[in-house]
Order: sequence, then structure tokens, then C-alpha cells
Amino acid sequence: MPFVYRQKVLFQHCDPAGIVFYPRYMEMMNATVEEWFESRLKHSFAKMHGAMQAGVPTAELRVTFSAPSRLGDMLAISLYLRRLGRTSAGLEFVAECNGQVRLTMHSTLVFISFAEGRPQPWPPRLRTRLEAEVEPLAAPEPQP
Amino acid sequence: MPFVYRQKVLFQHCDPAGIVFYPRYMEMMNATVEEWFESRLKHSFAKMHGAMQAGVPTAELRVTFSAPSRLGDMLAISLYLRRLGRTSAGLEFVAECNGQVRLTMHSTLVFISFAEGRPQPWPPRLRTRLEAEVEPLAAPEPQP
Amino acid sequence: MPFVYRQKVLFQHCDPAGIVFYPRYMEMMNATVEEWFESRLKHSFAKMHGAMQAGVPTAELRVTFSAPSRLGDMLAISLYLRRLGRTSAGLEFVAECNGQVRLTMHSTLVFISFAEGRPQPWPPRLRTRLEAEVEPLAAPEPQP
Amino acid sequence: MPFVYRQKVLFQHCDPAGIVFYPRYMEMMNATVEEWFESRLKHSFAKMHGAMQAGVPTAELRVTFSAPSRLGDMLAISLYLRRLGRTSAGLEFVAECNGQVRLTMHSTLVFISFAEGRPQPWPPRLRTRLEAEVEPLAAPEPQP
Repeated sequence: MPFVYRQKVLFQHCDPAGIVFYPRYMEMMNATVEEWFESRLKHSFAKMHGAMQAGVPTAELRVTFSAPSRLGDMLAISLYLRRLGRTSAGLEFVAECNGQVRLTMHSTLVFISFAEGRPQPWPPRLRTRLEAEVEPLAAPEPQP
Repeated sequence: MPFVYRQKVLFQHCDPAGIVFYPRYMEMMNATVEEWFESRLKHSFAKMHGAMQAGVPTAELRVTFSAPSRLGDMLAISLYLRRLGRTSAGLEFVAECNGQVRLTMHSTLVFISFAEGRPQPWPPRLRTRLEAEVEPLAAPEPQP
Repeated sequence: MPFVYRQKVLFQHCDPAGIVFYPRYMEMMNATVEEWFESRLKHSFAKMHGAMQAGVPTAELRVTFSAPSRLGDMLAISLYLRRLGRTSAGLEFVAECNGQVRLTMHSTLVFISFAEGRPQPWPPRLRTRLEAEVEPLAAPEPQP
Repeated sequence: MPFVYRQKVLFQHCDPAGIVFYPRYMEMMNATVEEWFESRLKHSFAKMHGAMQAGVPTAELRVTFSAPSRLGDMLAISLYLRRLGRTSAGLEFVAECNGQVRLTMHSTLVFISFAEGRPQPWPPRLRTRLEAEVEPLAAPEPQP
């Protein structure tokens, strides 16, 4: 089951055309990751950036915007962990409103220790939690 | 009873010093007004900015920042309607975390119709709802 | 020659790790498009969103973040129009600081008239300007 | 002579009503302080937040919004140092476009060392620079 983050489209998210300004979607995706780390992986960003002196910056992302979102829309953002690497994680996000897909995003996060300043293997306890979350894409059905 | 809006301090709210960047607090205060309009006054921003072709811009504000907020803090933002004018409203906000006040803000909103482009009297139905919310500051105790 | 937009990394762009928060990069990319429309294409966003009642929302984007940017860095963001479609445009952005690439982004914009609410052919005058800007990627060198 | 920071109103600053969203003004005011520190006081935020391990958080502010700003407006934000305290500074900002005042803001900054976590006296070199910038409000003309 994916992690789902709910976000109402607020005034602050909307541009002069009355639709969500896309950098604001990126903030929502970041908040989704943040809540997933806290509630599912039991590693809050506060703890990671504080005591652990580590972070999970985004190395790459691809987004398709399918339909605009408007003031007051309630978005459900589903997060799937599609791939777990030694130092990275491949995520997929789908944001929907009333069953209509608004955007799909794929991103790669890397685990960075601030002291090293470059990608590090996931710490064992965090890695164990991540492994439990992996949900690869179903293989396509074999064609007859 | 004041309207209370809860907002966790997210990564996106924090600056390089690790505390909430004050323009981000202003976004939280705006979200508080927005939710108050929707849930208590039954006039959503979506309806106001859409069908009603009206808005409630801020004409002035005063803020005192008493203590910093950090990543992961859960803020409770209380909103009080202190004064109701013909075309304006005077609000007070208190943002707290675990009983510690983080900021206090006073602002004046005005009701604007986009067609007129200047302050207009509150529409009767909205005014009735606002009147039910007014909670003036307690008068100071009489001095002996 | 690409259009180049310069942006200093300000306090407001940086996160608690002291580096640019990626949604803030997206704002910089949007500002780059905006300035390109105004100074090279002679169609300001003010005119488009106002009198023309049209806009250029982003339909998709891909970003690779190669190296972090820090407070005070001066970024040079180069914009290349790589592909011009009937209703769309394919852009490439490269953001650099002192010759080091910080991010590369590819995006597809579409021209939307607000009345129609869906992609429309570029207006003739704007199309003429866009054609003058197209700079396809050089074909790879033939291999011996 | 005040320090003047110029900022064009960009798409990212505007709300669904087509005017600057007030938290975005606060970002502009912060950028004004930041550029003033770098160019007039010769203490960049990068240096302060880095090597000096210090910052200048805002302790209070008062804003009057006189007229809205729209997409494409070129704002000139004048900053005046009105009062210099042992650990604080009182600033006045006036943002104008074509001679029309859009907002006036008064704020109090405090100098904080991260190690101490509370207000500290301005370091001598910075204080000397600040003293050269003080421009108290002119005394009111004597009445006959």
C-alpha cells in the first residue's frame, strides 16, 4: 500500500492563472517525502538533519503534469518506493483529485552524510525500514 | 473560542539557520485565515475568488516574533476576530508550540470586490457570520 | 547564443542544509522563461496573462541536479529552445556557477488560451520570434 | 542616501487575484536587507551565516500595504537605518513603483551569535559600518 499525503490547494499555491504554480507542487512532493520518512520510516527530517547530520537531497526528477489543480482542490499524493539502491532510492508519486491524475513524478534521492558531503550507504536501521517499503512496478503481463 | 489551525514546521519553512523563515510564517497566517473563512464563516476562498469575484487582501499587519520555531515543531495558531468594521476586520493571531508563544500578529483585512477594486461593505450573509465570531479583547480591569 | 539569466543565491532559496531547496530552483527556471519571453520574444507575461488571456504552462520536465548551490553563489542559467512544435516548445536549461554545472533541466511548455483551456497554435507573431530562437542540439559527430 | 533594491514583480510573486501575495513582499524585503549587508556593510549573509556563525533575525515588523503591485511592475525598495541599538537595528522600507508607494515597512533586526543563541552586541567592524548608515527621521519642522 502506498503512503498517501493529503494536501488541500491553498491560495499560496496558486498563480495568476488560478492554478497551482509548479514549484509549489515540488514543495508538496517534498512534504510527502518528509511525512513518509517520519511516519513510515521512523526517521524524521528533524532527527536526520539534527542528530544524524545527514539528508536526502534529490538527484534527479521527471514530472508529467496531466491536468491543472485549482484553489480548494483536495489532492491525494501517493508515494511508492520503486527501487532501493546502496545509497539511493527511486520514488514514484501520483497526485490525484477525485480520481483524476494531476501529476506523476519520478525522483531519485540519495543519502548524504554532511561530514562526508557525498552519497553514503543507507544506515542499517533505515535500510531495513526502506526494504519493507519497496514495491516494484508490476512486470508487464506476458503477451500471448 | 478562537479558531485554531495546526501546522507542523516542515523542511520548506526553514532557513539556513534551521529556523522558520519569517515570510513562511506569513504563509501560515494566510492559510489560517483561509481555513477560518471556509470552516467557520462558510465562505471558501475558492468561492470568494471565483463566483463572488471578491477577496480579502491584508491592508496592514504587525508581528512580534518571540521565539524561533524549528523543523518538526507542531504550531497551534489561534485566530481571534477583534474588531469588525463596515468593510474591514481586525484579527489577532497567536502561534504557540508546547505553550510557548512563537509569534503574535495583528492584521487588518479589507473586503474588496474585483469589479470595484476598492473596499466594499461585507455582504450581509458573510457579515452575519463575522458578527458571531467577534471576540473583543477583555477590557482592562478597573484600577482601584 | 542562448539567453542567459543571472540569479544570485539568496537566503530565501536555501534550506536547513544550507543549499538551494529544489523547488526554489524551479522558481528560478520559471523566472528565466519569463525574462526570455519579455526580452527576446517581446511577449511579456504581463501582456500574455493580461490582454492576450493566454499562458505557457509546463507540461513536463526532467531535471538532473549535479552539484549543490550555496548562499551567495552567482548562477548563470542558460536557456536553449531545442524544439518548436505547433502548440509547444521544448526547452533546455543549464545552470552554472564558475563553470561548474549545478543542474540541467529539460521542459515542455504549451501555449494555452484561457478561453479554450487547452493547447492552441502559437500566435503568428510569437511563432516568428520563437523560430528565430530555435537552436537544435548539434548532431553527434559521425564516427569513422 | 537610502540603499535602493530593485525588484521586478514576477509571476512567482503573484496570487490568483493577479497581485503580489504579501508573504512574497516579505521575501523581497529580506533580499533588500541581504543586499544592503553585502554591498553597503561589507558583511555578506554567506560570511555571516558561515564563518561568523551569526545572523540577523527579525524581532518585529509593521507593514502598511497602500496599493497593490501587479505582474511586470518594477519596484524600487528604499531601505533606511533609522535606529541603531547595542544589539539591534531599526529599519524602514518604502517600496514604490512609478512614484506610487506600494508598502511601507518598519522592522527591528537583532544580531544573534549561533553559539550564544541570543542577542549580542554588534561586532566592532560591522557596528562602524552601521553607524555610517544611520539616517534618523528628520525632526518635524518647528511650528510658528
